[in-house]
Amino acid sequence: MGDTLYERLGEKPGITVLVDRIIDLHLQNPVVGPRFQHADVDRGRAMAKEFFVAGSGGPEPYTGRSMPEAHRGMNISEEEFLAVVDDMMAAMDQLGYDQRERDEVLAIAYSLKGDIIRQ
Amino acid sequence: MGDTLYERLGEKPGITVLVDRIIDLHLQNPVVGPRFQHADVDRGRAMAKEFFVAGSGGPEPYTGRSMPEAHRGMNISEEEFLAVVDDMMAAMDQLGYDQRERDEVLAIAYSLKGDIIRQ
Amino acid sequence: MGDTLYERLGEKPGITVLVDRIIDLHLQNPVVGPRFQHADVDRGRAMAKEFFVAGSGGPEPYTGRSMPEAHRGMNISEEEFLAVVDDMMAAMDQLGYDQRERDEVLAIAYSLKGDIIRQ
Amino acid sequence: MGDTLYERLGEKPGITVLVDRIIDLHLQNPVVGPRFQHADVDRGRAMAKEFFVAGSGGPEPYTGRSMPEAHRGMNISEEEFLAVVDDMMAAMDQLGYDQRERDEVLAIAYSLKGDIIRQ
Repeated sequence: MGDTLYERLGEKPGITVLVDRIIDLHLQNPVVGPRFQHADVDRGRAMAKEFFVAGSGGPEPYTGRSMPEAHRGMNISEEEFLAVVDDMMAAMDQLGYDQRERDEVLAIAYSLKGDIIRQ
Repeated sequence: MGDTLYERLGEKPGITVLVDRIIDLHLQNPVVGPRFQHADVDRGRAMAKEFFVAGSGGPEPYTGRSMPEAHRGMNISEEEFLAVVDDMMAAMDQLGYDQRERDEVLAIAYSLKGDIIRQ
Repeated sequence: MGDTLYERLGEKPGITVLVDRIIDLHLQNPVVGPRFQHADVDRGRAMAKEFFVAGSGGPEPYTGRSMPEAHRGMNISEEEFLAVVDDMMAAMDQLGYDQRERDEVLAIAYSLKGDIIRQ
Repeated sequence: MGDTLYERLGEKPGITVLVDRIIDLHLQNPVVGPRFQHADVDRGRAMAKEFFVAGSGGPEPYTGRSMPEAHRGMNISEEEFLAVVDDMMAAMDQLGYDQRERDEVLAIAYSLKGDIIRQ
């Protein structure tokens, strides 16, 4: 596999499958599922795919709101943040990604924590 | 003071002052403040006043959404619920309400917990 | 039934049954159960019975540590506190206590919150 | 610097300074500080140093209890777990460790989450 995380995630096709799996897990996750029941999940999937592409070094930009703006007023807790990370790691594991890629995604997710929690 | 909680809360004028005080405290409360930063606080005040009037035995109906519906997708935590109750008790204390009224409002708030948390 | 909460809880026999029921529920409660797995549950039951007797106006003293001292270093969360209150209310409901007694116990529990959480 | 994480953390002298810094931060951290106020902090420091040495590929064994055993009955929350990770990352940052080492320590901490939370 190539050198950028984007390539190692399987480029856009890989990221599409990965984000869909992550959000499928969120919908079933008792800790964060309620957030998604009445949200625009289709838009959430589209924005998350753009965010993964851009954030992993892919060729297309993220056109959504900034992380603080996107989570404004949601008052997301530490428990919810970890549940989201757990779903990301579980999805990557289910799809056969290696430890190296999982650790890189974990580090990116953790670096965004302050822009996501308690906004 | 009269017999119904509505009368003992000071009827509509008393409830208006009380709810405004509670929501002022929410806005400054680090645990729940973020929820209100980008919400329609004016509508929140109006609905909360109606809810207190109707819920305390007053003569006017509550015209808002049901409790589960009003909190749908917010995924409110136990910590947030208790912060709201704390603000209610603090506001009643600041405004000179007696223990009896505070305990009745506490019991009502607690009875609504299951319709508010993790919706 | 008599006038003090102690009498209305059924004096020592009633409180013994009530506290045992509450702690049985705690042991099965996923939120607080882990706290009890390796604790001295027998001592906990004895101390809680004393505390209920003394706190409801009964004739015998509470000989345990102060509330902050008893919870020191446990870092009890708001979620855990509410789980304990829920078990208390559920046990009182199962044992047929009236709303009045449940509300009084709720008010006492709430008044102790600051000495229990995050000690 | 060498290849194993143990070498890159500065071997035993580096780990000693790092763990002391982490625990100093824990003691001041409002989220987890209360846990340490009445704990045997000296033993905690010693065990954490051993754990870091062994877990980073160092030459000496960890002689303490297993992670689940060491946290049994503490009912550690997700919020507390993240506060501990934050202190670890802040200490590494203060001491000038690179992103690569921070990300490896983050991945190890995350891999232990299930043995630490809600035991």
